[in-house]
Amino acid sequence: MAKPRKETGRAFMVGRFQPFHNGHLAVIKEILKENRSIIIGIGSAQYSHTLKDPFTAGERHLMISSSLEQEGIYNFYLVPIEDVNSNPLWVAHVESLTPGFDRVYTNNPLVRRLFQESGYEVRSMKLLNRKDWSGTSIRKKIISGEDWKSDVPKAVAEIIEEIDGVTRLRELTQSDE
Amino acid sequence: MAKPRKETGRAFMVGRFQPFHNGHLAVIKEILKENRSIIIGIGSAQYSHTLKDPFTAGERHLMISSSLEQEGIYNFYLVPIEDVNSNPLWVAHVESLTPGFDRVYTNNPLVRRLFQESGYEVRSMKLLNRKDWSGTSIRKKIISGEDWKSDVPKAVAEIIEEIDGVTRLRELTQSDE
Amino acid sequence: MAKPRKETGRAFMVGRFQPFHNGHLAVIKEILKENRSIIIGIGSAQYSHTLKDPFTAGERHLMISSSLEQEGIYNFYLVPIEDVNSNPLWVAHVESLTPGFDRVYTNNPLVRRLFQESGYEVRSMKLLNRKDWSGTSIRKKIISGEDWKSDVPKAVAEIIEEIDGVTRLRELTQSDE
Amino acid sequence: MAKPRKETGRAFMVGRFQPFHNGHLAVIKEILKENRSIIIGIGSAQYSHTLKDPFTAGERHLMISSSLEQEGIYNFYLVPIEDVNSNPLWVAHVESLTPGFDRVYTNNPLVRRLFQESGYEVRSMKLLNRKDWSGTSIRKKIISGEDWKSDVPKAVAEIIEEIDGVTRLRELTQSDE
Amino acid sequence: MAKPRKETGRAFMVGRFQPFHNGHLAVIKEILKENRSIIIGIGSAQYSHTLKDPFTAGERHLMISSSLEQEGIYNFYLVPIEDVNSNPLWVAHVESLTPGFDRVYTNNPLVRRLFQESGYEVRSMKLLNRKDWSGTSIRKKIISGEDWKSDVPKAVAEIIEEIDGVTRLRELTQSDE
Amino acid sequence: MAKPRKETGRAFMVGRFQPFHNGHLAVIKEILKENRSIIIGIGSAQYSHTLKDPFTAGERHLMISSSLEQEGIYNFYLVPIEDVNSNPLWVAHVESLTPGFDRVYTNNPLVRRLFQESGYEVRSMKLLNRKDWSGTSIRKKIISGEDWKSDVPKAVAEIIEEIDGVTRLRELTQSDE
Repeated sequence: MAKPRKETGRAFMVGRFQPFHNGHLAVIKEILKENRSIIIGIGSAQYSHTLKDPFTAGERHLMISSSLEQEGIYNFYLVPIEDVNSNPLWVAHVESLTPGFDRVYTNNPLVRRLFQESGYEVRSMKLLNRKDWSGTSIRKKIISGEDWKSDVPKAVAEIIEEIDGVTRLRELTQSDE
Repeated sequence: MAKPRKETGRAFMVGRFQPFHNGHLAVIKEILKENRSIIIGIGSAQYSHTLKDPFTAGERHLMISSSLEQEGIYNFYLVPIEDVNSNPLWVAHVESLTPGFDRVYTNNPLVRRLFQESGYEVRSMKLLNRKDWSGTSIRKKIISGEDWKSDVPKAVAEIIEEIDGVTRLRELTQSDE
Repeated sequence: MAKPRKETGRAFMVGRFQPFHNGHLAVIKEILKENRSIIIGIGSAQYSHTLKDPFTAGERHLMISSSLEQEGIYNFYLVPIEDVNSNPLWVAHVESLTPGFDRVYTNNPLVRRLFQESGYEVRSMKLLNRKDWSGTSIRKKIISGEDWKSDVPKAVAEIIEEIDGVTRLRELTQSDE
Repeated sequence: MAKPRKETGRAFMVGRFQPFHNGHLAVIKEILKENRSIIIGIGSAQYSHTLKDPFTAGERHLMISSSLEQEGIYNFYLVPIEDVNSNPLWVAHVESLTPGFDRVYTNNPLVRRLFQESGYEVRSMKLLNRKDWSGTSIRKKIISGEDWKSDVPKAVAEIIEEIDGVTRLRELTQSDE
Repeated sequence: MAKPRKETGRAFMVGRFQPFHNGHLAVIKEILKENRSIIIGIGSAQYSHTLKDPFTAGERHLMISSSLEQEGIYNFYLVPIEDVNSNPLWVAHVESLTPGFDRVYTNNPLVRRLFQESGYEVRSMKLLNRKDWSGTSIRKKIISGEDWKSDVPKAVAEIIEEIDGVTRLRELTQSDE
Repeated sequence: MAKPRKETGRAFMVGRFQPFHNGHLAVIKEILKENRSIIIGIGSAQYSHTLKDPFTAGERHLMISSSLEQEGIYNFYLVPIEDVNSNPLWVAHVESLTPGFDRVYTNNPLVRRLFQESGYEVRSMKLLNRKDWSGTSIRKKIISGEDWKSDVPKAVAEIIEEIDGVTRLRELTQSDE
């Protein structure tokens, strides 16, 4: 239904950020060229300690805010968003947790569709260096011992060290025997 | 946000219907004068077997559909709606469970507010004979043994008999000693 | 445990109805030959906007009731049933949401088993034209652009058009790049 | 519906046991005179650290099993039971968590009603010394510093000491200023 | 159990912030004198549109971050925290959503107790002008039309205006007739 | 964080026990050589009636307690543990449901990791005859009709017979046609 709405200059994007990497940072900088501020949703917030989702929402919160501060970026809102397991409720769930926003940036077809059906403007993001700058690829490098620190902001590498994230990921790969 | 929407001729109302009574029936008839069909939400669907909510959603479903059929009314949709315990998700929850609708009939300030903030037209209902035609009053009469059958459609009285609802209500009033 | 029970003449069946098709319609007509009325459970009610479950419970509700009305069938109860994610609670969950019923029609081994362990009579259904009349096959045809409208009641085709369901399904197939 | 059932010689009772006291113990002994074994459900298992429900399910588990062992009673099954917030699902929830049983002992009208509607035999319990042997009264004594240890089995007093339960209860009474 | 932990210089506090007011701001400034940064938990995040909890988590997020920015405070982390309805899980829930922290500031006896049992240092906060600077009192003033804007930071007054919060609160007080 | 803790002499292990078999029994005996008592968590307690999880928590409770009693083992605590679907809450969930314990026995990397991050001592278990003594292998044998009774304690075989578990498992393998 038609909700009355004021222009806020705010954009919304969501990711799992497992972990936050240089590709995410580049996208955020791009979005901030077109918007006054950005709301960053930390998706699947309740999950952690799996190979696909190793880091807690709190650890990811720290990764993102520390990285953005290192870049001198302060016009962002960080919001953990737990999955609701019901797609038709998801946009309302996001709206309840975030300051109002004008547009959504996503390349995910489901996220695009859900926000479009709710009447939002949705824009795509240009992704750079997808081979290296992807969570999947970085988690694999962490496990195998390849260099991954050059794919993430310095703050992220420090936090993963501090919480002993490398050991956590490697232990989770061990078989149950 | 602004959702594109086609005129459907459908109205929405929601109640707990503990039990369905003559006042509900009168309201539905009024609404159908202004609308092609009506969606009737059975609220707090997951609750039953308490003094405030004695009947299951299924029992209430049967009460309403039987009563409307006795009146020759067929242009209705009956939808049980479980509470979601988060007001900002409630309208999306209702929308996901119901066919689309154009307007909402309610006298409840929260329901009114939530639908208005989502851009819906909300209308009030004129309630008749509020002294007798209220769930609270009818449940009291059932417990105390006063006449309650004249306050509900014939089908409702039959169903409450059939499921032995009078005994259920009276047993629930007993103290825990 | 043994519950006292009166003969109601009602049958129960459950499906996901993604979407409702001619096979479902044929089965319902068969069941109504042996029973006074039918309760149709819309399963996995909370899901939508995925390739496997594209339509909301409300959209499916409308598909089924419109199709049955086009056939002049009015002796049915439509009940959305959310998954409870705990098999041993599922029959009680269904019972709480539906009018009482005498027997269950299903070909699903889990549904059969759960109702049998609760003491219900369970009957199988003869399925016709399984190649074309299956949700999976129809969703594939919608995506690929093959003719699918001849596999569903006229009302279903109209509703899918109206909610732009074809675009929804196709967009959900796009890759996340 | 009618479930086939074998005689098991097991009884079921449920309580919150905040804390387990001499009245509970007396009731269990009575029930074991009429039954081969007893299933003891620890109700509202997910709650703790409130004035009404100070102890965790694990702490209550330990209180009960230690008290019964002190009495030389071993023919019991202890099962924590989280509230499901939907009365019509509650009996199925209990059944899924417990070994099968033949009869239920309760003085609670809701528990009685729910099990009766599911076809169980339900018996009342004679409660002794209700003035002193009640959770409410014992929690008040713990807070005010009156003697409460004579109202509970020795093992319970020891466990409450060990987990510093007296301090926990008193701190929870402090106002938020 | 003993978790290894590094000094982080971070403090944690939690509130419902319905709405954020001058008392909250004063407390945050005090805490930041003793700590490098502060994590502010927005409690009962899923609730809104009631007289006790009128504002969504997103609206409260905006109130707090705008107020702190007006004061030139940037060393804070804002984290919405949904109730988990199980006290013994609450600290782990908070820990999963927040960056690590060294100490907790609270005057709430339950929050104090739960964090103490998990081994945290807990400090009290000195509250100023409790008569005017309390959520309850401010919500009453908003409803009755008394001056409330002098009790909240300027940013909060602007946001409540912008979302038409005064009307929302007043409508929610209307009776259901 | 550092929780104060007294030596309890209790060990914790968790399994799904679908079904309880000789390998489980051997492990429990080993653990009891090093500990005064053992807490046995029945994991994924809410699941049943699937090929992977055929038995309810209550049925598994009975299998385990009957088997241990046949062996004359009484120093155990049996606790059903429902999945919480959020790894960072899982240890607190277990702690709330169980008496306190000193160490954890597990070969599962996730369980090991979660308890280690909470400061617990974690030990591995030597598993014997993994080819035959595994739930997967035993469920396969039950379905195919091979001998499986020699892989489980006598009490388990009796209980599976009594609840007609063989038929349940076989019916669940049938295709949905």
